[in-house]
Amino acid sequence: MAEATSSIHNRLATLEHLGEGTVVAEQIFGMIGHSPFFAELDREDVGVLAGFMQVYRARPGKVIIREGDPGDYMLLLIQGQIDILKKDQRSNEQHITTVLPGMTVGEMSMIDGEPRFATCIAKETATFAVLTREKMVKIIVEQPRLGAKILIKLVMLLSQRLRQTSQKLLDYMAR
Amino acid sequence: MAEATSSIHNRLATLEHLGEGTVVAEQIFGMIGHSPFFAELDREDVGVLAGFMQVYRARPGKVIIREGDPGDYMLLLIQGQIDILKKDQRSNEQHITTVLPGMTVGEMSMIDGEPRFATCIAKETATFAVLTREKMVKIIVEQPRLGAKILIKLVMLLSQRLRQTSQKLLDYMAR
Repeated sequence: MAEATSSIHNRLATLEHLGEGTVVAEQIFGMIGHSPFFAELDREDVGVLAGFMQVYRARPGKVIIREGDPGDYMLLLIQGQIDILKKDQRSNEQHITTVLPGMTVGEMSMIDGEPRFATCIAKETATFAVLTREKMVKIIVEQPRLGAKILIKLVMLLSQRLRQTSQKLLDYMAR
Repeated sequence: MAEATSSIHNRLATLEHLGEGTVVAEQIFGMIGHSPFFAELDREDVGVLAGFMQVYRARPGKVIIREGDPGDYMLLLIQGQIDILKKDQRSNEQHITTVLPGMTVGEMSMIDGEPRFATCIAKETATFAVLTREKMVKIIVEQPRLGAKILIKLVMLLSQRLRQTSQKLLDYMAR
């Protein structure tokens, strides 16, 4: 486990660290209303949450998350674009989607600790705020009201994705 | 909205109401360890949660949830089996899966308030505990520690389903 943890930290350590989330709090405020993740968090909530996050920047082509790696953080894209890739049955990486500012990545592993489902690579220079599982636990313990809001947002986000993905699967199966 | 709410309550009202969740608390205890939903809830947690739930029974063939309906509750199957059906592009209901005791149904609409994604019909006489959104909010406010545990469980459950569904979709797309 120590090795797994250190490899996670090594990957973040290869990125440019811009400081605490509070440095981008203003940009995060600007995303309220655009991002499903922050839709019901008020200005104060975002300020508190930003204090639990760290901000990083990745240059184009940089791998931010690698499929199959252990992972204990999610990220909120502030600026730039991130490509999501996944290996097909022949181990060729296929492009799944492109993530835009205001969207989140990696929530599943942040919560359940399972290996990363897909690879995330900066398409354009990407600035993003990172929330680790450790900080999420701290929010739940120290700020239970905010913690519940974030968890509800995560459930809503995953529900939405599950509905979309299930519908796509059913459409494919019906062909 | 009044009409939508009353139609939900009417559907539950057509089922046999067996009382508060506490009547099946012992059976719920028996499921700890088997159910992903209750995996990290201790005996005391389950006792408290059971007090927020209502237990119903549906005879074979009875519709418990109808695709497209508004819905504000999830259910935990205690006994029996529930078939999950969804309309295909020609509006024919296709069998998606069968739910077994310990599994949950309807979490997505309970949290996000979107219309029901699929229809649930009792395959065998089904006894289940119902958790409404109103009671979920009450748990979060009155029992924030338990509320966070349940929300984390929901995120884990949805993550797991999303991984499985996404993988199936990718496999279909690769054909």
